[in-house]
Amino acid sequence: MGYFDAASGAPLHPVARQALLASLDEGWADPARLYREGRRARLLLDAAREAAADAVGCRPDELAFTSSGTRAVHAGIEGALAGRRRVGHHLIVSAVEHSSVLHSAEVFEASGGTVTRVPVSRAGAVTSGQYADALRPDTALACLQSANHEVGTVQPVAQVAEVCQAAGVPLLVDAAQSLGWGPVEGDWSVLTASAHKWGGPSGVGLLAVRKGVRFAPQGPSDERESGRAAGFENIPAIVAAAASLRAVRAEAAEEARRLRELTERIRARVPELVPDVEVVGDPVRRLPGIVTFSCLYVDGETLLHELDRAGFSVSSGSSCTSSTLTPSHVLKAMGVLSEGNVRVSLPPGTPEEDVERFLKVLPEAVAGVREKLGAPSPRTAGPQDALVVDALGKRCPIPVIELAKVFGNVPVGGTVRVLADDEAARLDIPAWCEMRGQEYVGEEPAERGSAYVVRRLS
Amino acid sequence: MGYFDAASGAPLHPVARQALLASLDEGWADPARLYREGRRARLLLDAAREAAADAVGCRPDELAFTSSGTRAVHAGIEGALAGRRRVGHHLIVSAVEHSSVLHSAEVFEASGGTVTRVPVSRAGAVTSGQYADALRPDTALACLQSANHEVGTVQPVAQVAEVCQAAGVPLLVDAAQSLGWGPVEGDWSVLTASAHKWGGPSGVGLLAVRKGVRFAPQGPSDERESGRAAGFENIPAIVAAAASLRAVRAEAAEEARRLRELTERIRARVPELVPDVEVVGDPVRRLPGIVTFSCLYVDGETLLHELDRAGFSVSSGSSCTSSTLTPSHVLKAMGVLSEGNVRVSLPPGTPEEDVERFLKVLPEAVAGVREKLGAPSPRTAGPQDALVVDALGKRCPIPVIELAKVFGNVPVGGTVRVLADDEAARLDIPAWCEMRGQEYVGEEPAERGSAYVVRRLS
Repeated sequence: MGYFDAASGAPLHPVARQALLASLDEGWADPARLYREGRRARLLLDAAREAAADAVGCRPDELAFTSSGTRAVHAGIEGALAGRRRVGHHLIVSAVEHSSVLHSAEVFEASGGTVTRVPVSRAGAVTSGQYADALRPDTALACLQSANHEVGTVQPVAQVAEVCQAAGVPLLVDAAQSLGWGPVEGDWSVLTASAHKWGGPSGVGLLAVRKGVRFAPQGPSDERESGRAAGFENIPAIVAAAASLRAVRAEAAEEARRLRELTERIRARVPELVPDVEVVGDPVRRLPGIVTFSCLYVDGETLLHELDRAGFSVSSGSSCTSSTLTPSHVLKAMGVLSEGNVRVSLPPGTPEEDVERFLKVLPEAVAGVREKLGAPSPRTAGPQDALVVDALGKRCPIPVIELAKVFGNVPVGGTVRVLADDEAARLDIPAWCEMRGQEYVGEEPAERGSAYVVRRLS
Repeated sequence: MGYFDAASGAPLHPVARQALLASLDEGWADPARLYREGRRARLLLDAAREAAADAVGCRPDELAFTSSGTRAVHAGIEGALAGRRRVGHHLIVSAVEHSSVLHSAEVFEASGGTVTRVPVSRAGAVTSGQYADALRPDTALACLQSANHEVGTVQPVAQVAEVCQAAGVPLLVDAAQSLGWGPVEGDWSVLTASAHKWGGPSGVGLLAVRKGVRFAPQGPSDERESGRAAGFENIPAIVAAAASLRAVRAEAAEEARRLRELTERIRARVPELVPDVEVVGDPVRRLPGIVTFSCLYVDGETLLHELDRAGFSVSSGSSCTSSTLTPSHVLKAMGVLSEGNVRVSLPPGTPEEDVERFLKVLPEAVAGVREKLGAPSPRTAGPQDALVVDALGKRCPIPVIELAKVFGNVPVGGTVRVLADDEAARLDIPAWCEMRGQEYVGEEPAERGSAYVVRRLS
């Protein structure tokens, strides 16, 4: 049993479970009522707010509980943008934010706003200099995640907060992936988080808005949670969220050290055990529990199925695993290989044996998928006569596999054109070139799809 | 112990508790994932959706789970209005809808829409004729609650649905108060509900949208719940909601009969036990568990405190119990007395003894409050010389008490002017006249507040 997808949602922490049970009997009533059941619910809610605010590093009256991290992001962005609508209609986000941030940005654009998407390095990080360059006199808000959810790269939030503050622009930090590990450093203005990412229950998000930040809640008015989260408070879940945040924080330093060692092991050993793998994300500035890699010539969905059969639950940013059949926007923005992508995110408490067994199972699983797909190997890549590869109608990772098969026949200095209409090819063919030390010449229009031109250098 | 505020939120049903516990271990993972934990979560979610859809009387794919009843209403109204924005920008609501509906209507108005608020009878009901009159060629949506949350009056939903359907206008029914008792009759288009009203957990709302109804979800896009409810699904709570809905439905017929008898007892006996009481709401077409009455010369907040001390938790629509110091919009729309208002809403399972004890405690509590306030009684209402009562700066129920004190000195056919600046006086002085068989002449502007003129008829 290896549940390695904590970045999607962590199993309920024992403390969360205990707190939830204990407060089911005390916390069901309306905390706005003055009778005893209401007062009891109010006491629980107030205590949870104090505990959570303490962990966030804000005042209790700055913190609202929302019904999810996604709702916290939606409400936080629209409230902060509306609060500064007189300043202007410009929003800055990084290109690798969570979809809840990017979708909020799209709504803002559709209503006439302008959005700057700050690109990231190949490791997935922005710089404060990029944010400084993006700031404009009409910038209403900047958003930056504390750490990336797909590759684990930690962002320079404190430095970005500094340049935003110097410009008088509020910074919203999506701390969904990091809050369980520690408070967000630096002078953020708005912070969002999600309890089920740290082992709290589903149904609780955090939205902290610093005093002094102009904030105008949108949508129908509602008296609850300072007008920032409409609907009856889910107090048992809120109590469980606060209690478990405190619990995971108490274990954070020790557990971070342990998980970091385990993910370091995966980072180091996967490329030794599996040929043609690219480990992505920053090797140093990263979350303790996340490691992501992509395997050439592998279909992500099939690999996930194989790993599931072997008892491991992981996720993937490959195009074949998304409902839209496009690769993850994060991998795209980083410009790294997306085919055969695997994100391992270890929940706290993951035993070392599980990681070792994963390292044992993975090479076979990858080899099995490659064999099924007829991926090239010294044995199979025979001489062939083709300078054009027609991979039209074929899905990732077939176009790259076809390219690799014929590449041995391309003379050094010569080129090959890959015809493909799968969106992932645009990302994966250049990534293959980078991994193989060959030259990616560029993309040309073709009768159907595109032609991707590659020059053999060696 | 008497928790008599089920209309605000019911204590957790044992079946809800059991289902919640059972699914905490199985339902925490992301149901969109394909690995085993995700598949298990998906199975639970699908089964809960089938069960809830069955209870609602819709297809599973017509039903989305939201994070609260309020969110269901907000999302339902804005989605339905946006879906028909080409038809027009006119919305019909009843004057006694829940605040989540009325606040949604205000947002729509602020964005340029037009809203017709259908008035209600003194019993709190609308008629289908009123809806027929309100319908216009540019009507995008009509909304009507299945039953009122403050007075329990059941609305003629099936008839209103008929006139709306004849006009091709969708009808959204807020079924928050009634869904535990049975499905909503008639051809509704959109239906909303809230689990914690029927003994389910907090954090779950229902939003059903019939196939064929034009519906355009608003806000940032999100793949979950057919795009109608953003954020990670709270599956344990959803499972508990569906299981408890099924459980309360199995007990509904028997329990409705029992509670109806108990509330009938309160309706009949309170006016016998307490002088100067107005029982409000429809005596026949009403929910089984709700009964509401108002007590002349009583301060609602003090009465609630007295009842709480005696072990009873009730709510009130009196102005003094609201943060805005205005009487409940429902009582206002009905034109009934708002002072000393008490809503008793019995949760399923309420023992008969609790109701009997309430009937024993209430007269003393009311008498105590009246005595503290110096309310008139045959003993205290001595002759006084004043045809103008200055109640400026005095809060409900003082203006009415002052009026009653001097009224004995007004000659039959003569008038008295009450100067008052409390908003509740506008409702309560006419209501007092109605209860006393005196003539309410009308309101006149005054230097401060208003002058309310009353003529003595007998």
